Amino acid sequence: MTVELISVGTEILLGNIVNTNAAYLAEKCALLGLSCYHQSAVGDNEERLEDAIKLALSRSDIVILSGGLGPTKDDITKEVTAKVFGREIKEDAHTKARIQEYFRQVHSGQITPNNWKQAMVPEGAIVVDNHNGTAPGLIIEENGKAAILLPGPPNEIKPMFERDIASYLNKLQPEGIYSKMVKICSVGESKAETMVADLMDAQTNPTLAPYAKTGEVHFRVTARAKSEEEAEQLMKPMVDELYKRFGDKIYTTEEEVTLEEAIVELLKEKNLLVTTAESCTGGLLAGRLLNVPGASSVYKEGYITYSNDAKERILGVKRETLMEYGAVSPQTAYEMAAGAAKAAGADAALSVTGIAGPGGGTKEKPVGLVYIGCCVKGNVRVEEFYFTGSRDKNRDYSVVRALTLLREELLKHHS
Amino acid sequence: MTVELISVGTEILLGNIVNTNAAYLAEKCALLGLSCYHQSAVGDNEERLEDAIKLALSRSDIVILSGGLGPTKDDITKEVTAKVFGREIKEDAHTKARIQEYFRQVHSGQITPNNWKQAMVPEGAIVVDNHNGTAPGLIIEENGKAAILLPGPPNEIKPMFERDIASYLNKLQPEGIYSKMVKICSVGESKAETMVADLMDAQTNPTLAPYAKTGEVHFRVTARAKSEEEAEQLMKPMVDELYKRFGDKIYTTEEEVTLEEAIVELLKEKNLLVTTAESCTGGLLAGRLLNVPGASSVYKEGYITYSNDAKERILGVKRETLMEYGAVSPQTAYEMAAGAAKAAGADAALSVTGIAGPGGGTKEKPVGLVYIGCCVKGNVRVEEFYFTGSRDKNRDYSVVRALTLLREELLKHHS
Repeated sequence: MTVELISVGTEILLGNIVNTNAAYLAEKCALLGLSCYHQSAVGDNEERLEDAIKLALSRSDIVILSGGLGPTKDDITKEVTAKVFGREIKEDAHTKARIQEYFRQVHSGQITPNNWKQAMVPEGAIVVDNHNGTAPGLIIEENGKAAILLPGPPNEIKPMFERDIASYLNKLQPEGIYSKMVKICSVGESKAETMVADLMDAQTNPTLAPYAKTGEVHFRVTARAKSEEEAEQLMKPMVDELYKRFGDKIYTTEEEVTLEEAIVELLKEKNLLVTTAESCTGGLLAGRLLNVPGASSVYKEGYITYSNDAKERILGVKRETLMEYGAVSPQTAYEMAAGAAKAAGADAALSVTGIAGPGGGTKEKPVGLVYIGCCVKGNVRVEEFYFTGSRDKNRDYSVVRALTLLREELLKHHS
Repeated sequence: MTVELISVGTEILLGNIVNTNAAYLAEKCALLGLSCYHQSAVGDNEERLEDAIKLALSRSDIVILSGGLGPTKDDITKEVTAKVFGREIKEDAHTKARIQEYFRQVHSGQITPNNWKQAMVPEGAIVVDNHNGTAPGLIIEENGKAAILLPGPPNEIKPMFERDIASYLNKLQPEGIYSKMVKICSVGESKAETMVADLMDAQTNPTLAPYAKTGEVHFRVTARAKSEEEAEQLMKPMVDELYKRFGDKIYTTEEEVTLEEAIVELLKEKNLLVTTAESCTGGLLAGRLLNVPGASSVYKEGYITYSNDAKERILGVKRETLMEYGAVSPQTAYEMAAGAAKAAGADAALSVTGIAGPGGGTKEKPVGLVYIGCCVKGNVRVEEFYFTGSRDKNRDYSVVRALTLLREELLKHHS
């Protein structure tokens, strides 16, 4: 079954926004086993939109249109699609009531007349409720083809797709597609792929596919099945096998859980406080950990120690260490981590010292050389890295490597 | 003159990558005065790519293809385009020499045979050197139409467009389009637009258009002219007028300069050291300042003080202040900024304390309430903000507001 995406909006054609909806929908459709051979973007122009819809319906089974469902005159996706299918547009009482309720809750009832435009629905269309806005999703079916109209704002289209569109698409196919994300750290991408090469070769149902993410490896396990329960049963042996091979290097099998969330959870479980002492990452490591709502129960304070003086005074790094080995050295990373834990009265500490670039490199200590220290209950481990990216990339990788190192050391620690 | 974009690559159709090239090219083309009515994406499939190119050439003057110029068999953009134009493909000695030189420098000479594929060029095509990779850009002209083939990696396509493609497109038109970005902080978006409403209404050549960016306002001044010098002359009165109205709230007129770079520059000029004391932003403010290479000359150390204890112990915030007014209060922000400057021995300090959400809000202190303090040479100013976004957004806005506040106070300070 083939699907085609049409993004509607002049702001896309002008490059004012990046079309993240297309990537989102494309990925979701691929995961549902649909083949997508075409994506296009057109403006809010009747003639060109009509041509685009007709072309898409001529070559694909399902056409997903996003955007152009707003209340203004510019928004014509619904009207043009109805025209292509030869359908009248009529007011839908259910949608009208929902819009009324939405405005009562969100805008204290201030509805402008043009909002009622969004209650108008093509005859015979399936109405998909919008729980995050006023434009409903619409599905028009005819002759084994379907046009699915979705609102443009990412915070509306995504929950609508997850909640209703994915299951609609799954029902169109003899078997639905279900998947699980197994997220792994502490193993390099190519090593991880080698470790499951046999599983990837032998795969039929479920299948296994790697996804690279800065410093992590994610494997998606995908099953075709008649129901979610059947899919779960099919996926379980594969997930179990991955656990057998990667063990506790798997930090989650939940789509939405991030590495920093898993680590904050681990710290909470073990009832440990963590701190950070950063040189080249300059606050990004702390910023990432503190992305997690509620991280305040495991993180009380941290330090950005750019200068040698700060490393000495705040963290207690010895002057001789700095003189003899330099600020970018395993010895300094060691003392930074141990000193940070002490200064913050924390059970665990991460330290990062390195040369992010573009300047500051030497032959002995090139740009990209980073030392990361991790102290848990007085035990300090230091790792050396040579990153080869831009300043941004080197700092990003340093942050992920530091988090990974902390997780490894936390798992070793039994309270 | 119309332009159309075709993005080539299965990774786009599968949603594995977000198509930022399309947004980049669309914006650049719009700035050059070209009209873009269609964007599309197709995979590395001969038949569908051929159809896409033919359709695009049938309705647009210029077709820009990105991606599919790599050395592998999958990469077929050049071959299919040459077929559409009926051109042979032959080895280009100049490109071959460049590839040889590139590998000598970057990969110690390790060329694999398939790399020579990238030296093959359609007959009569204009070759555009790639200074960041091995695939040259190619332009094929015929009957007043042109196909422009560009490499897919953003770090190759962008410099190639800036360096050579923009001027090529400008030459196709009777007058070229040139522009300048005037970047403003400390003025809200709608106020800034009101302040120049007359200029925007009266505009012909140059034109003035606002671009919103988190916490900043950018105005693009665009002129049509026969040469860059003529454009400069046309734009100067408009830029002067903007300076008259916004004064030192304009922090740069250079496309590439960021707010944090402008501030680091200002600190260097005034020979001042800065530090940061962060609660809800948790290191992101420091991380942003330290994005700037060479920031180490103006930033030596900083603090993440999440807990009350850390605010007291590290920054010297008085216990009574925390007890009486709470951690999220103007009084605490004041003492955090003053205390941070003292602790770090810095001339200037920024403090941020607030409720980023989603939890932690009360009726008196709702989610989104943030106090930012700025201390320069002992003078402290505190500002109150109510942000209304997600945790991420609230933290991002806090960072920009803090930077803006610092800039304002630095400008007041005469050493």
